Amino acid sequence: MKISILGAGAMGMLFGAYLSERNSVWLIDVDRDRVDLIRTDGVTVQEPDGRERIFRPAAVVEPDGLGKMDLVVVFVKSMFTRDALRRVRGIIGQNTYIMTLQNGAGHEAALLELVDAKHVIIGTTQHNASVLGNGRTRHGGAGHTSIGLLEGDPSAIAPIADAFTRCGIECGVCGEVRRQIWQKLFTNTAASALTGVLQVPLGFIYEDPDAREVMRALCKEAVSVANAEGAAHFDEAEAIASVEAVCRNSRSGYTSIYADIRRGARTEVDSISGAVVEAAKAVNVPVPCHEMLVHLIHAMERRPK
Amino acid sequence: MKISILGAGAMGMLFGAYLSERNSVWLIDVDRDRVDLIRTDGVTVQEPDGRERIFRPAAVVEPDGLGKMDLVVVFVKSMFTRDALRRVRGIIGQNTYIMTLQNGAGHEAALLELVDAKHVIIGTTQHNASVLGNGRTRHGGAGHTSIGLLEGDPSAIAPIADAFTRCGIECGVCGEVRRQIWQKLFTNTAASALTGVLQVPLGFIYEDPDAREVMRALCKEAVSVANAEGAAHFDEAEAIASVEAVCRNSRSGYTSIYADIRRGARTEVDSISGAVVEAAKAVNVPVPCHEMLVHLIHAMERRPK
Repeated sequence: MKISILGAGAMGMLFGAYLSERNSVWLIDVDRDRVDLIRTDGVTVQEPDGRERIFRPAAVVEPDGLGKMDLVVVFVKSMFTRDALRRVRGIIGQNTYIMTLQNGAGHEAALLELVDAKHVIIGTTQHNASVLGNGRTRHGGAGHTSIGLLEGDPSAIAPIADAFTRCGIECGVCGEVRRQIWQKLFTNTAASALTGVLQVPLGFIYEDPDAREVMRALCKEAVSVANAEGAAHFDEAEAIASVEAVCRNSRSGYTSIYADIRRGARTEVDSISGAVVEAAKAVNVPVPCHEMLVHLIHAMERRPK
Repeated sequence: MKISILGAGAMGMLFGAYLSERNSVWLIDVDRDRVDLIRTDGVTVQEPDGRERIFRPAAVVEPDGLGKMDLVVVFVKSMFTRDALRRVRGIIGQNTYIMTLQNGAGHEAALLELVDAKHVIIGTTQHNASVLGNGRTRHGGAGHTSIGLLEGDPSAIAPIADAFTRCGIECGVCGEVRRQIWQKLFTNTAASALTGVLQVPLGFIYEDPDAREVMRALCKEAVSVANAEGAAHFDEAEAIASVEAVCRNSRSGYTSIYADIRRGARTEVDSISGAVVEAAKAVNVPVPCHEMLVHLIHAMERRPK
């Protein structure tokens, strides 16, 4: 398969590296230094056990002359999705699939500007990675990757899931993509965003009684919106339990929203809690805690150092 | 006038210092080091323009032998009001007024244990101060101080207001004490508590568009509760405008909730936003943003350093 990965960040490098073992892979990134380094030295993946492996995907700043891709995977930060896709429209043809595995929800709008709903793949992955430096990524942990089509027969993307699995990214096709997006949002909005505001590791959200109350209130709001939307039905108690399980299982884990706020950078909250607020407006469900959460995080992004 | 100030914190020092210019003033504080330092070096007030002034109020740990006061002003943190008043009951006579200018609401219960309702003065002040060190207070901003009697003819306390004004604390008597408590709560809950969560000076609440949205949402909730209670009627837009005025006038001012959270100490949020939540329950008005705010602050009090 011909695969382009947009964004040579931690996850882009990881997926690009793995997939390059059995496919033609191009990492596309606006950072010329980063691209040059990957061309010279390849991508180094530090595995969870400390072992380092070097991979040789191609890397380019501009994708001119590459022809149409079978698959474009978007791994830039959500606020840069639109720009990144516009820059590479030349490699996107009628049969190209675009996949997002980004945090949060609402990414499909940008993807739908370039392909139809039958070529938009939305997924979630339990892989996680952090940047060690240009061309170097630390593989924090592996797990299942689940992908689904926004519209149409999901079996159409079974070959993509197989290609991923053959490269060591264990992947399955899921028929209920809406359900999957919401399930991911519950954790992102009720736990991740909250660790940003409170500046705590994930475990605190479960262990502190007041933090937990806020997490539950956020979870309840998100479940109300999801159920009002009607594409899937969620049980409030189950949703809360699953968020609590993530917090317990990653007790000392720090989220990207936590890290962004800590260094005074822009966060992805608009694609996470902001996506819940947007969905809530469409179905006319009040979400006062989410509105407050989004405003608090934006205010924190801008507070004086 | 014979005036005792309970608590030589930022505001206690400020009022004690100013009032000592034309009255006999005793600062009473449980911290012996602090009291000794004030006895030796006086109280230094750093004015908003940076100028420093030194005042010489008396300072004691135990008020034995001071006789009955004309006025006792409570400036300890709300959770310590009861203890502080019990320790100084010897200086409180039949004609002693007890005044609270503390943040939040619900303080009158402790005051009524020592004097009748005709001697309980509840007030609000737009002065703002933060501790620079023992015996040193930073005067963040000035403004109007308004006092009222819990019961009886408010003109009885006109001499007290005059005494304050003559010392540079511009003060008026207000007939509607319930109204005044709410007016104070609007600022405390919508601006002060929020500076705690965001860890910013007051001006940020007005200047940052997202912080301002949260402030407005909190203000609206508090106004709904106040109006449902029915003792006074408030206009939402006016309430918001008055909170905004406080933020503008004390742009670089830091609140005590800010300082408490910064050093990981217990805050007064239960007397502030918590008082709004309690009042809301009694009149059955939903206040989701206030509930979230109180939980966030309690969680922040306990987060790992």
